[in-house]
Amino acid sequence: MTTVDIPVRLAERSYQVSVGAGLLDHLGSRLRELAPGGKVLLVTSATVRRLYGRQVEKNLEDSGFDVVPAEVPDGEEAKTLAMAGVLYDRAYAAGLDRQSPVVALGGGTVGDLAGFVAATYMRGVPFIQVPTTLLAQVDSSVGGKVAVNHPRGKNIIGAFYQPKMVLADTSVLATLDRRELRSGLAEVIKYGVIADADFFSWLESNLERVLTLESSALLHAVAVSCRIKARIVEEDETEQGRRAILNFGHTVGHAVEVLTDYGVRHGEAVAAGMVQEAKLAAMLGVFPEEEAARLELLVKRAGLPVKKAPLVKEPPAKESSFAKEVLDLLRRDKKSTGGRYVFALPVKIGKVEIFFDVPEEKIRRLVADF
Amino acid sequence: MTTVDIPVRLAERSYQVSVGAGLLDHLGSRLRELAPGGKVLLVTSATVRRLYGRQVEKNLEDSGFDVVPAEVPDGEEAKTLAMAGVLYDRAYAAGLDRQSPVVALGGGTVGDLAGFVAATYMRGVPFIQVPTTLLAQVDSSVGGKVAVNHPRGKNIIGAFYQPKMVLADTSVLATLDRRELRSGLAEVIKYGVIADADFFSWLESNLERVLTLESSALLHAVAVSCRIKARIVEEDETEQGRRAILNFGHTVGHAVEVLTDYGVRHGEAVAAGMVQEAKLAAMLGVFPEEEAARLELLVKRAGLPVKKAPLVKEPPAKESSFAKEVLDLLRRDKKSTGGRYVFALPVKIGKVEIFFDVPEEKIRRLVADF
Repeated sequence: MTTVDIPVRLAERSYQVSVGAGLLDHLGSRLRELAPGGKVLLVTSATVRRLYGRQVEKNLEDSGFDVVPAEVPDGEEAKTLAMAGVLYDRAYAAGLDRQSPVVALGGGTVGDLAGFVAATYMRGVPFIQVPTTLLAQVDSSVGGKVAVNHPRGKNIIGAFYQPKMVLADTSVLATLDRRELRSGLAEVIKYGVIADADFFSWLESNLERVLTLESSALLHAVAVSCRIKARIVEEDETEQGRRAILNFGHTVGHAVEVLTDYGVRHGEAVAAGMVQEAKLAAMLGVFPEEEAARLELLVKRAGLPVKKAPLVKEPPAKESSFAKEVLDLLRRDKKSTGGRYVFALPVKIGKVEIFFDVPEEKIRRLVADF
Repeated sequence: MTTVDIPVRLAERSYQVSVGAGLLDHLGSRLRELAPGGKVLLVTSATVRRLYGRQVEKNLEDSGFDVVPAEVPDGEEAKTLAMAGVLYDRAYAAGLDRQSPVVALGGGTVGDLAGFVAATYMRGVPFIQVPTTLLAQVDSSVGGKVAVNHPRGKNIIGAFYQPKMVLADTSVLATLDRRELRSGLAEVIKYGVIADADFFSWLESNLERVLTLESSALLHAVAVSCRIKARIVEEDETEQGRRAILNFGHTVGHAVEVLTDYGVRHGEAVAAGMVQEAKLAAMLGVFPEEEAARLELLVKRAGLPVKKAPLVKEPPAKESSFAKEVLDLLRRDKKSTGGRYVFALPVKIGKVEIFFDVPEEKIRRLVADF
């Protein structure tokens, strides 16, 4: 088995991200290097539990752990303070103490929720990420952002809390539905744009191999993505500055998510957001139009949307109110500051910079044709 | 005005604890050094708001802050996940962003709850402690422990999250009820025992000056206590080791709190806990009996209980079940590990060490006469 180990160096909060096919069967033995055994809270969603729950539970038990399973509903609705409360109850009733690990086996939702509980149960217990979607493997499982949603906004209640270990088993992506796989690809493409022109070129040449789940291509795509994310998180753990380049595509993307009432996948919104933000960068004269076109082509080839049109459905008459709403959302976005329009925009493939005061007029033009 | 500034050095999480009479009127100007103005969530309890709410709100407004007041009920029942939810709602509805400070004006309960919200709202916002009880000034406001209670256990849901500033105004202690003042003194005495024999002697000579709220004596007592706490926190921010010496008196104290269903003040339980744990240390032959007697005398002079007898009321016939319950609690205490009895015990006035495996038989003997 080929495994790539990527260190995330954050002083006493350092850890390793391991990427490889079949890693699920090594969870128990890897965890034994961190914990002497004892109770483990295993948080999974209904679907993931059905597919991999028994295998993982048995693997942990074989390594001497006493598994306390906690199943949460599929999807974003599980990410609530109330569900965190249910997990605290489960952990406390089962006698988990401050040494007991919490393992998140699932997609981003499970990781965010379980991570929030790990960050706050007894002021923080060891947290293990076992991401099972491409999106979670390349993005949310690395970097320590954990959260639950507030009724009026996503990820409003959360923390920066690093896992002790991330195990990304690429073979589980075989059971991922195609739409979810494509959604994850949006973030993979993003890494090329923000930090690695060679990786972007590699994706242009190898996209079909990734889409057909060819093992070595998947491993490369996930490992390079995790390495890029790790380097950025190392430089700026709590998003004071540089980490904001990860938001490329997410500002417009977030507006798309809100205006569709989260009716689209995160990666779909980010894909459209990237293409539109690249256009904005071209409009501002900081990014060559032909590079924006390269990005748009790759996004299309991945089967992802390039504009909100297919995502947001409303009569043309409402277009102007849509523009107003987008501007409103951009201003109130928590990535924004002081009412100015802040964007992470590419200056070339492989490099993104933060623009702290994008003129409203340019955004209006973009949105009008959006 | 005499102010003592005590640095708490924790790399990028460093801050200063300021102790002095009249500091409440400097909150706004001090906060301006940390934040440019804008919205501030001011969390207070009903009683504290009645006494100091208007003064503090006006002071903050005069310094250019837009105060969003949030009043929580008096007492421990405010420390719930549900109340945290109410504060998130308030903050979000008022438009607080990730730069907006949360100010805790009140005792330990308000500080713990507001701190938990500050730690988790938008993954952490600036947190300011303005403790108004002696206990909060010398203990809970310094060191970054924040939490809410679980229905079945105190402080089960929490984090280590350092404040950006602590302002301890000793003049507000004049409105504190006497029982609460004495309760705070228990922790002050503790600092002498665990870390500073000179301070312990000073307390023996100056206890009445502190009890009568003589300004310079109060300032000294609070400032020295904060300095000792700060040094210990600097060495062990997240309670991996050394910080456990702060638990002197708290192991037995916690049992007393649970068995009285929290019908006693925290400091009262700690006072009895210290005297009993000192006896345990003497019984183990690690602490001179005459030193244990010195401690008992000082605790008595402070008007604090020295054993659980006046605290826990039950018929003598239940004594044996009481002993069993205490042992049970000690084993399950989250400060404990692996079922052994762990205690922070004095080896002389001014020095406490951790004993990781106190024989059960000694504890039984202690409890029998407790």
